[in-house]
Amino acid sequence: MHELNNFFYPKSIAVIGASNSSGTIGFVELENLLKGSFTGKIFAVNPNHEQIQGIKSHKSVFEIKDEIDLAVVVVPAKAVPLVLEQCIEKKVKAVQIISAGFAEVGNTELTEQVQKIMNKGIKQGTRFLGPNILGTLYTKTGVDTIFNPPYRSPRPKLGGISFISQSGALGAAIIDWASVKNYGINKFISYGNAMDINEADLLEFLGQDKETKVIVMYIEGVKNGRKFFETAKKVAKKKPVVLIKGGVTEEASKATQSHTGSLAGSTQVFEALYKQTGIIKAETLNEVFEFAKIFGLEPKPKGEKVQIITNGGGLGVLSTDAVILNKLKLSMPSKKTVEKVAKISPQYAVLKNPMDLVGDADDERYRVAIEACMEDENIDSIILVMLFQVPNLSEKVDEIVFQLLKERKKPVAILSVGGTFSQKHKKKLTELGMSTFSSPFMAAKALKALTEFALRK
Amino acid sequence: MHELNNFFYPKSIAVIGASNSSGTIGFVELENLLKGSFTGKIFAVNPNHEQIQGIKSHKSVFEIKDEIDLAVVVVPAKAVPLVLEQCIEKKVKAVQIISAGFAEVGNTELTEQVQKIMNKGIKQGTRFLGPNILGTLYTKTGVDTIFNPPYRSPRPKLGGISFISQSGALGAAIIDWASVKNYGINKFISYGNAMDINEADLLEFLGQDKETKVIVMYIEGVKNGRKFFETAKKVAKKKPVVLIKGGVTEEASKATQSHTGSLAGSTQVFEALYKQTGIIKAETLNEVFEFAKIFGLEPKPKGEKVQIITNGGGLGVLSTDAVILNKLKLSMPSKKTVEKVAKISPQYAVLKNPMDLVGDADDERYRVAIEACMEDENIDSIILVMLFQVPNLSEKVDEIVFQLLKERKKPVAILSVGGTFSQKHKKKLTELGMSTFSSPFMAAKALKALTEFALRK
Repeated sequence: MHELNNFFYPKSIAVIGASNSSGTIGFVELENLLKGSFTGKIFAVNPNHEQIQGIKSHKSVFEIKDEIDLAVVVVPAKAVPLVLEQCIEKKVKAVQIISAGFAEVGNTELTEQVQKIMNKGIKQGTRFLGPNILGTLYTKTGVDTIFNPPYRSPRPKLGGISFISQSGALGAAIIDWASVKNYGINKFISYGNAMDINEADLLEFLGQDKETKVIVMYIEGVKNGRKFFETAKKVAKKKPVVLIKGGVTEEASKATQSHTGSLAGSTQVFEALYKQTGIIKAETLNEVFEFAKIFGLEPKPKGEKVQIITNGGGLGVLSTDAVILNKLKLSMPSKKTVEKVAKISPQYAVLKNPMDLVGDADDERYRVAIEACMEDENIDSIILVMLFQVPNLSEKVDEIVFQLLKERKKPVAILSVGGTFSQKHKKKLTELGMSTFSSPFMAAKALKALTEFALRK
Repeated sequence: MHELNNFFYPKSIAVIGASNSSGTIGFVELENLLKGSFTGKIFAVNPNHEQIQGIKSHKSVFEIKDEIDLAVVVVPAKAVPLVLEQCIEKKVKAVQIISAGFAEVGNTELTEQVQKIMNKGIKQGTRFLGPNILGTLYTKTGVDTIFNPPYRSPRPKLGGISFISQSGALGAAIIDWASVKNYGINKFISYGNAMDINEADLLEFLGQDKETKVIVMYIEGVKNGRKFFETAKKVAKKKPVVLIKGGVTEEASKATQSHTGSLAGSTQVFEALYKQTGIIKAETLNEVFEFAKIFGLEPKPKGEKVQIITNGGGLGVLSTDAVILNKLKLSMPSKKTVEKVAKISPQYAVLKNPMDLVGDADDERYRVAIEACMEDENIDSIILVMLFQVPNLSEKVDEIVFQLLKERKKPVAILSVGGTFSQKHKKKLTELGMSTFSSPFMAAKALKALTEFALRK
């Protein structure tokens, strides 16, 4: 078993620095575990109390008789060395150091002291995540050490996207956002100062992890460039890896030093990384998950030819612009396809690309068009524009679309723009496992990323 | 009074082609008016019925004794010429032709016939909008002729953004989207084939309209380039005009012909337009309203120097990248500002740019930082990152921010990423009249557009 599995499948967890004071990190950490779905043993460690949140408080890890698979450390920075020494002696398998106050605030001496202790631990098989992290999340086993309380930051559902973030707060914000966007997250790992486990280790681990279908990374700088490069090459061959680099400008790169204590990697190095390893570059925060979504849900296209189906001319036009500007190609639907759709469409429908089913299109017109385009060998992928505002689409149209597409062999990006009613339909389609988008440009950009990935192999 | 006012302030409206069949356009048009807030007289015209939706149906406009300020025409294309002749004879002041089936489907003969009739009408003072339009919306007077039913497409609140769209469906989708985003819309006009009133007329009208603070346009091609250019020059000097061009690629430009019957203007011409008139270019659908929002809500900055305030390092880093990549400058906060904030911040807070108040920042730390930066003459505008997931920010922080910023003299873009809890706070801030964003890049890009506009004058 991979060593890092102890962070996600522990049989026992100790919260070192657990607290009774509501609102503190030491409180939230223990409370999340006690109230959550983790079924293993949970221990509180705090020498100043007899009981914490209703369970016994241990003076130190030595007072715990059981083996400890995972320790979550939330004590003040200056107490971290002693706690780590004790964890090592107790042979704890995995240690998360939530505590901050090390290299990121220029605390070199303490950092060096902790490094020495860690090195000793690593030799005997103890692995360390952090310090200066927000925690990890794996809802399947209930290992939730994110220190933001769930009422402020609801956890996302389980899914195939795993997410590594050097920045804790950013990671947390994205995880929180994923919850409302209904993205399925597998493993979330905030890795902060990366004094032991770094981005390359995590990438390798997630590359081997069968449940992880797509890997997303927020990175400011890498610890070991060569190792990361080699790992990325291997992993990106097997599964999609989407990376957003924080600090691509010199100015922002300076800011990263006082944040995770890391020197930001140069932009040139990262550009080479994308080119040579096949890692997918996200330029904005939005792209990160829009890409992850399409990679997680859609099959690989066989080519670059995109067919646009629409019931609104303007969105057909903007989608066409988006396809061309993203350097994809417009398909030419076959004669057979056009004939099929023409049979059930009014004369004023324009059955080219975009295929404009026009504003009075009903469920049936969509059904025939989708079916024909799915079978058409001239078409590699589809942007399916659906404006739900029009009166003729029924409430059942989502289900019809889903039935047609559930075993799809081509990627379909569904594009819909609108308010509460439209968003209800879009949410339904998302829940049924379809990739939905709000912007023509983003839909095309995501399809482009998917197409590039598919054709590179 | 401007002739076009008859479209927005009519004392009487006739729906020609009103219907009893639920779901049809002729039904929705009349129903919206009858159930809506329009306080003038409403007439139904349809020779085949005695009554429609409970009101008398007139055989033609001649049967109506009252003057008709606005006629909404929803009859089949082939019946349009006769209906227009009658409207002209009846001296209707303003005519909206919802009906489609003209140049956009290659129906040249009918188009020419209608054009001749229109020209006659224009001479006597009747003005025509359309054909092939979705309708107009002006919630203040209750003139709502959008043919999508409100339960499918809720109408946005009244505000300062007016929106002209050549594409009906796209316009409708955006109006619908504005409703859920809580953007305030003043006048919405779908102008379709523009056989009489065109984009230049509408731009001129909205330029003079006191309630319109920001003008947004979706245009595929212009009818009269010179006139549009001249009008744009005048109007863009007075108020912000944000334009998104559909059909910037040759491929999409072809698609516009079968959509609104117009030849798309060349991209070069539009690029010249942006440069020479001061019209603000939106490249994506998202940008349109993100720009409109910041122009509608924020004061003009005095310079290019942006200060980032954050409680999350990663978002500080990405915001820094976004500021630099959008060719704005980072401000250097004054010594006084730094001292004020340092007094109430822990040592590990990094008080530069980004000013990282760190994850345990509470309301007070934000209050002091915002106040200091608002007073700091080295700072022209602010990106205020607020991660609401952290435990230390209270439920009252929105109100505190609002009190500090309600009379702001610098633009502030509030950036927040997250799920339901965060979105609740963001919505509150939006309702209080603050500009909120979900993406660092978009926040910076919107600030850049605003700054360019401000400094050009």
